[in-house]
Amino acid sequence: MKPSRLFVFTMLAFTQPALAADWQALPSVAPAPKDNPTTAAKVALGQKLFLDPRLSATGTVSCNSCHNVMAGGDDNRPVAMGIHGKTGGRSAPTVWNSAFNATQFWDGRAATLEEQAKGPVVADVEMGMNSLDDVVTRLRQIPGYQDEFRQVFGGKEPITADNMAKAIAAYERTLITPNSPYDRFVKGDKKALTAQQQRGMQKFADAGCVACHSGPAFNGQNGAGTGTFMVFPAVPGSAYDAKYKLAVDPGRYNVTKQDADRHAFKVPTLRNVALTAPYFHNGSVHSLDEAVRVMAKTQLGTDLGDGDAKDISAFLEALTGEFPAQNMPRLPGTPGKTFVY
Amino acid sequence: MKPSRLFVFTMLAFTQPALAADWQALPSVAPAPKDNPTTAAKVALGQKLFLDPRLSATGTVSCNSCHNVMAGGDDNRPVAMGIHGKTGGRSAPTVWNSAFNATQFWDGRAATLEEQAKGPVVADVEMGMNSLDDVVTRLRQIPGYQDEFRQVFGGKEPITADNMAKAIAAYERTLITPNSPYDRFVKGDKKALTAQQQRGMQKFADAGCVACHSGPAFNGQNGAGTGTFMVFPAVPGSAYDAKYKLAVDPGRYNVTKQDADRHAFKVPTLRNVALTAPYFHNGSVHSLDEAVRVMAKTQLGTDLGDGDAKDISAFLEALTGEFPAQNMPRLPGTPGKTFVY
Repeated sequence: MKPSRLFVFTMLAFTQPALAADWQALPSVAPAPKDNPTTAAKVALGQKLFLDPRLSATGTVSCNSCHNVMAGGDDNRPVAMGIHGKTGGRSAPTVWNSAFNATQFWDGRAATLEEQAKGPVVADVEMGMNSLDDVVTRLRQIPGYQDEFRQVFGGKEPITADNMAKAIAAYERTLITPNSPYDRFVKGDKKALTAQQQRGMQKFADAGCVACHSGPAFNGQNGAGTGTFMVFPAVPGSAYDAKYKLAVDPGRYNVTKQDADRHAFKVPTLRNVALTAPYFHNGSVHSLDEAVRVMAKTQLGTDLGDGDAKDISAFLEALTGEFPAQNMPRLPGTPGKTFVY
Repeated sequence: MKPSRLFVFTMLAFTQPALAADWQALPSVAPAPKDNPTTAAKVALGQKLFLDPRLSATGTVSCNSCHNVMAGGDDNRPVAMGIHGKTGGRSAPTVWNSAFNATQFWDGRAATLEEQAKGPVVADVEMGMNSLDDVVTRLRQIPGYQDEFRQVFGGKEPITADNMAKAIAAYERTLITPNSPYDRFVKGDKKALTAQQQRGMQKFADAGCVACHSGPAFNGQNGAGTGTFMVFPAVPGSAYDAKYKLAVDPGRYNVTKQDADRHAFKVPTLRNVALTAPYFHNGSVHSLDEAVRVMAKTQLGTDLGDGDAKDISAFLEALTGEFPAQNMPRLPGTPGKTFVY
C-alpha cells in the first residue's frame, strides 16, 4: 500500500535527518518518447515554433513570452499574461529542464511535453487561438514551415497539431542546464560551493526539503521523495496561508476531483530557481529567502531562522546551471501578406 | 528655393520616365554618430536591452515584441500592440535597416535612433513605463547590466537612459540586410533577378516610384528623390482613401503644426517589404500587390494593371536581403527576486 501524504509528511517531520539525501547531478540529455525521437532538424523547427508569436490570436504572444529561454525560462511575473493582457491564476513554470518533469502544468493535467504544448495555444487567457485547427491553417500558409515540417515529419500533410507539438517538445528536451556549482560539487569539485552554500545544502537536507525536492532536478523525480505532487500548504494554519493566499487554488483537485488532491501541486524543479521569482503556483512570494521560509513552515512545520533561510537560499542559487548557447532563428515569412488582422 | 511637394509630384507625373533611376546597393555598415561609436560590447549590450521585456511595465513587452528581429523587424500586425493589449494608431515600422533612415517614427518625431529608442519605453500604449527614471531604477537592480554598462560606458553611474538608448541604437545599426537579389543584380549578377523581377524593376522606375523610394534603402535617402517625407495620399479622391482610411491620420502635422505637413509621412524603406505586411502607416492594406496598386493611384495618379502590380511586387520581393546570424543572448537575472508585480 502506498503511504498517504500525511503519513510520509509525519515520518519526515519527526525522523529528520534520517532520510539521507541522495545528491544527483543533472543529466545532460533528456530521454525522448519512442514516437518522438529528438533530431537536430526537429529541434530547429521546434525552436522556431516556440519563438513564433503567430501561434497566438493577436500575433503577439509566443511560447517564449511566458517561458523566456533567454532568461530563467519563465516571465518573472506573479501570473502569466497572455493576449490582450489577460491573466490566469497561476505563475508560468520554467521551461528549462521541464523534460525531467514526470507531469506538466502545476496541476499535472498534461502527462507529456507534447500534450502540454497544445494547451496554451488555445487557452483564452494565453495565446487565445480559437482551435488547433486554426493554428494549423496558419502554419500551412507559411512556405518555410511547409518545407521544414515535410523534411522533419514527411507524409502527405506534415503540418498537424500533433507534429507542431512534437517539434516544440523536442526543442524543449534540449533545454537542459547542467554543470551548476551544485553539479560540479557532487561530482567531486569541493570548491564549487561556498562555505555558506555547503551549510545551506546540509540544512536543505536536514530540514526535510529533500523529501519532495529530490532527484537530479529537485522535483521528486528519480529520487527518494514523495513523488510528483504535494499538498500545499501541508501544514495549514500558519499566517502565511492568508498572507500569500495559499489555500485558495484547489490545484490538482480540479483535474481529478479527488479530495486527496485538494491544494495538491506538482513539486516544481528547483533548478535555476534563483532566476524564477516570484514564487509558488500563484507567484505570491517575491523573494527566494521568503519562499524558503514559507516552505519550511507550511510543508515541514518549521520556523527557520533568518540565517538558515539565507544559507538555504545561497545553496539554491548554486542550482543555477549553464545555459546552452542558442542561435536566434529566422522565422519563415509569408511574403507579401499577413494573416493577423 | 526648394520645390514644393506638389511641384515635384507634378513634374514626376508628367515627365516619366525622364527621371533616371539611380540603382544603389545597400551598404553593409551603417555610419554611427560621433558620440556613439559602434563597438562589439555595446552592440551585445544593446541586443540584450532590445530583447528584454523588463523594459515594460508588465514585463511582457520588449522592443523586439513589435520589431521582431527574428522576422521582418516588425510584428505583421495592422497597428502595434503594447502592454495590456493596448493599440495605437500606427503600424510598427521595421527595425531592419532603420540605421539608413534620416528620421525615425512615421511622423519623423525623432531625429536619431538614440532619440527613438526612448519613446516606446514610456509610451502608454507600448511599453508603458511611467518614466525613464523608473526604467533606469530597474536596470540598476540587475547585477549583470551593472557590469556591462560599466564595461561599455565607464563612469561612476553608467546606467542612464541616454546610455540605454545608445546601446540599443548601436545594436540597431548592425541590423542591415545586404546581398538581396536586387543588390547582387546591380553589382553585376544579371541572373540574380528573374525576368519578371527585371520587368518589375523597370516598371518601378517608369511609374515614378523612385521619386520617393530612392537611394540604397529605397527610402528617399541619398537618392535623387523628394526627400524624407511625402504627403499620402498626394492625389486625394480615389476610392482607396475611404476604403483604407488614408486621410484620417494628420501625420507629420502633429509634430510641426505646419499645414504643408498634413498627412505627410516618412517615406519608408522598401527593403524586406515583402516581410512586413500589412502595409502603410495604419496597416490597412493586407497584401503587397494591393499596396503597390494603392501607391500608384494615390501618389502617382496611375491605375496599374494587375500584371504591372504583380511585376512590381515581384521586384519588391527581390529586396529581401540576407539577415545576419545572431546569437540568442542571455538576459542577466535578478537572483532571488523580481521587480515585476
